[in-house]
Amino acid sequence: MIADIIATGDEIRTGALVDRNSAYISDKIEEIGVEVSRHVCVGDDLDQMRSLLLETAARADIALVTGGLGPTMDDITSQAAAEAKGVELQLDPAALETVSAFFTARKLPMSPQNRKQAYLPETAVSIVNPVGTAPGFQLKIDRCVFYFMPGVPHEMRRMLADSVLPAVVQIRGEQHLTTTVKTICTFGLPESVVDEKIAAIPDQFPLLRLGLRASFPFIQVKLYGRSADPHELDRQIAAAQEQVCTCLGDTVFSTDGQSLAESLGNMLVSKNATVAVAESCTGGLIASQLTDVPGSSDYFLFSGVTYANAAKEQILNVPAAILHKHGAVHAETARHMALGAREVSGSDYVIATSGIAGPGGGTAEKPVGTLCVGLATPETSQGFTYHFPVRNREQNKLLFAAVAMNKLRKELLKTC
Amino acid sequence: MIADIIATGDEIRTGALVDRNSAYISDKIEEIGVEVSRHVCVGDDLDQMRSLLLETAARADIALVTGGLGPTMDDITSQAAAEAKGVELQLDPAALETVSAFFTARKLPMSPQNRKQAYLPETAVSIVNPVGTAPGFQLKIDRCVFYFMPGVPHEMRRMLADSVLPAVVQIRGEQHLTTTVKTICTFGLPESVVDEKIAAIPDQFPLLRLGLRASFPFIQVKLYGRSADPHELDRQIAAAQEQVCTCLGDTVFSTDGQSLAESLGNMLVSKNATVAVAESCTGGLIASQLTDVPGSSDYFLFSGVTYANAAKEQILNVPAAILHKHGAVHAETARHMALGAREVSGSDYVIATSGIAGPGGGTAEKPVGTLCVGLATPETSQGFTYHFPVRNREQNKLLFAAVAMNKLRKELLKTC
Repeated sequence: MIADIIATGDEIRTGALVDRNSAYISDKIEEIGVEVSRHVCVGDDLDQMRSLLLETAARADIALVTGGLGPTMDDITSQAAAEAKGVELQLDPAALETVSAFFTARKLPMSPQNRKQAYLPETAVSIVNPVGTAPGFQLKIDRCVFYFMPGVPHEMRRMLADSVLPAVVQIRGEQHLTTTVKTICTFGLPESVVDEKIAAIPDQFPLLRLGLRASFPFIQVKLYGRSADPHELDRQIAAAQEQVCTCLGDTVFSTDGQSLAESLGNMLVSKNATVAVAESCTGGLIASQLTDVPGSSDYFLFSGVTYANAAKEQILNVPAAILHKHGAVHAETARHMALGAREVSGSDYVIATSGIAGPGGGTAEKPVGTLCVGLATPETSQGFTYHFPVRNREQNKLLFAAVAMNKLRKELLKTC
Repeated sequence: MIADIIATGDEIRTGALVDRNSAYISDKIEEIGVEVSRHVCVGDDLDQMRSLLLETAARADIALVTGGLGPTMDDITSQAAAEAKGVELQLDPAALETVSAFFTARKLPMSPQNRKQAYLPETAVSIVNPVGTAPGFQLKIDRCVFYFMPGVPHEMRRMLADSVLPAVVQIRGEQHLTTTVKTICTFGLPESVVDEKIAAIPDQFPLLRLGLRASFPFIQVKLYGRSADPHELDRQIAAAQEQVCTCLGDTVFSTDGQSLAESLGNMLVSKNATVAVAESCTGGLIASQLTDVPGSSDYFLFSGVTYANAAKEQILNVPAAILHKHGAVHAETARHMALGAREVSGSDYVIATSGIAGPGGGTAEKPVGTLCVGLATPETSQGFTYHFPVRNREQNKLLFAAVAMNKLRKELLKTC
């Protein structure tokens, strides 16, 4: 079965708006075992839209369309569908009922523009919209069954769940494939090295396909499975996951898509330990990532974002002599930041960062991309220096935060 | 000229990843006066990709393609392009130079997988990738000139700016329409109210179209202009901008797309003032946003991310009696956090946050969505309490950070 997704609208076509609807629909369609073939987007142009509908009618079995069902003059999807089918628009009593029910429930008058929304192509079957004014409709053109839905995300999502997915399940029938995606997250190896290490794995698992995805600064290994036999699929996924983890060792920090901050949080919870942070070049990003995790207040105590040297001295008690001797960007300074944050917060573990995120501030000795990490445990403290290739400020902050959090993760692994 | 955008990858096709590249490219292409016709996405499937390239070759004049140029087994775009053109892949010396230069600059060995990236379809012209290993290439198939770029966003963006847009400008020629987009950023009014306030403006500017875009928690007013007369276009844009700013008053924080943190940074620089932050519920997000701005070390001194009450007491000197009487989430506590951070950092201005970001931690009196903001200036200190509708944790953090930074912005406006 060939399934296409179509998004309409000049906002999307011109790039003013990122199309999230297509990803949402694809995800739901794949979940019920139907493989999505293509996404296409066109603007609010009658000729363009009619051409696309005709092409799709000839190539796909089903198509899920969003957008252009509203009351305004640039909402032309129904007209384009009617022209592609070669029929007229006519007032649909069921659709009119949907539209007027919306206004009645809200005790609002219905405008003539809204009445326009109840005109559907002849032979179309209207689809109820319980949360908005735009009725959807189903229409067969050539070999393809089209489902037209609104572009407003929460209206589309409700109509998809209530009406469209059940209809697609009917078309799909009982014979269908189960789809599974497994996400294994790694940090520390370049994409090409990850690829090389796991290259031989796919041959052993005929139901699976392996893919790599760079989600800076992480590399994700994706296992895509598809089969009519869900038990065999589960077995292959589990066995392949084990092999990937063996090949990639402790660079793997999660096997269920969890972020590095979430993995770290789980480790801290299981050790009943607390963490604090002292941040210079990461500017609060580590704290923000750690506290994005619900429940992080159980283990996260404090981050001191000390940009100024005075703040490093006064708040983190970094000795003036250390700052004077080594400067702010130094392994020894980072180690003292970690010690200071451990002292003031009473935390078990502390990570500290000091470095040059750029674009300014670099020197020959300490260029942009230099990172110093301090790590304090209940017993020890250490300092490390790294030099990374020059990237932009935002990427440097992301990379620096990951390096520091990963340093703590590896420390925690030792005592698991 | 018909211009299509193609994104490849199973991640996008299956909905695991939202395709932002197509919107980015469309925006840039429209900016140079070329109208985008369609976006299409297909997965990592050789047959599907070849079919799409052949269809596009027959219908479009130019096509910008992203994805599938990496070193791994599921990177098959070059092969699909070669098959669509009916030629073989061959080692491209210029492309090999690009790939090996990347590794040489980083003093890393080049793997055989990376060498694969230098194999391009015969007659293709390679395009330099200064920030990654995947060379791009230009290839004419049938009537269409294709530009193949990597899918990694920062690599694609750089290649688009350096090489592809200049090439498209050449094809476009001198006769073209000028396109301008102006982004006016606001905070504090609901989208429907912004819409109502500016509803009458478009009628006066025939060359412009106004659009609203929600970029949570901000609302952007977009002015889209398109004309063969760039001077008249500039005049209308300037006049419309003035009217929008008059209608929306001090909810406008930038008229050039600058973030709230950037606007705040500019105000602080112009006043020669410094800022510090004391964060509980925002967990470092305010510090991270402020320090995303290059040069922020000139005015940002410190943020104390004090999740634990003990940290609020010890690091920010919040009196134990205040915490005991009011609890952590209270205007008075937030005010004392701001005072404490002002004292320890020596900063001119301080913003402090304490609240319930959820999903847990809410009570009947202080439900999820409660935010307290403390504001300290060189002379004064104040505390404020807000109650917002329940949103998810990530959105609450974004909203809370914006409310607190906006409070400081309005304070700075008073003394501008």
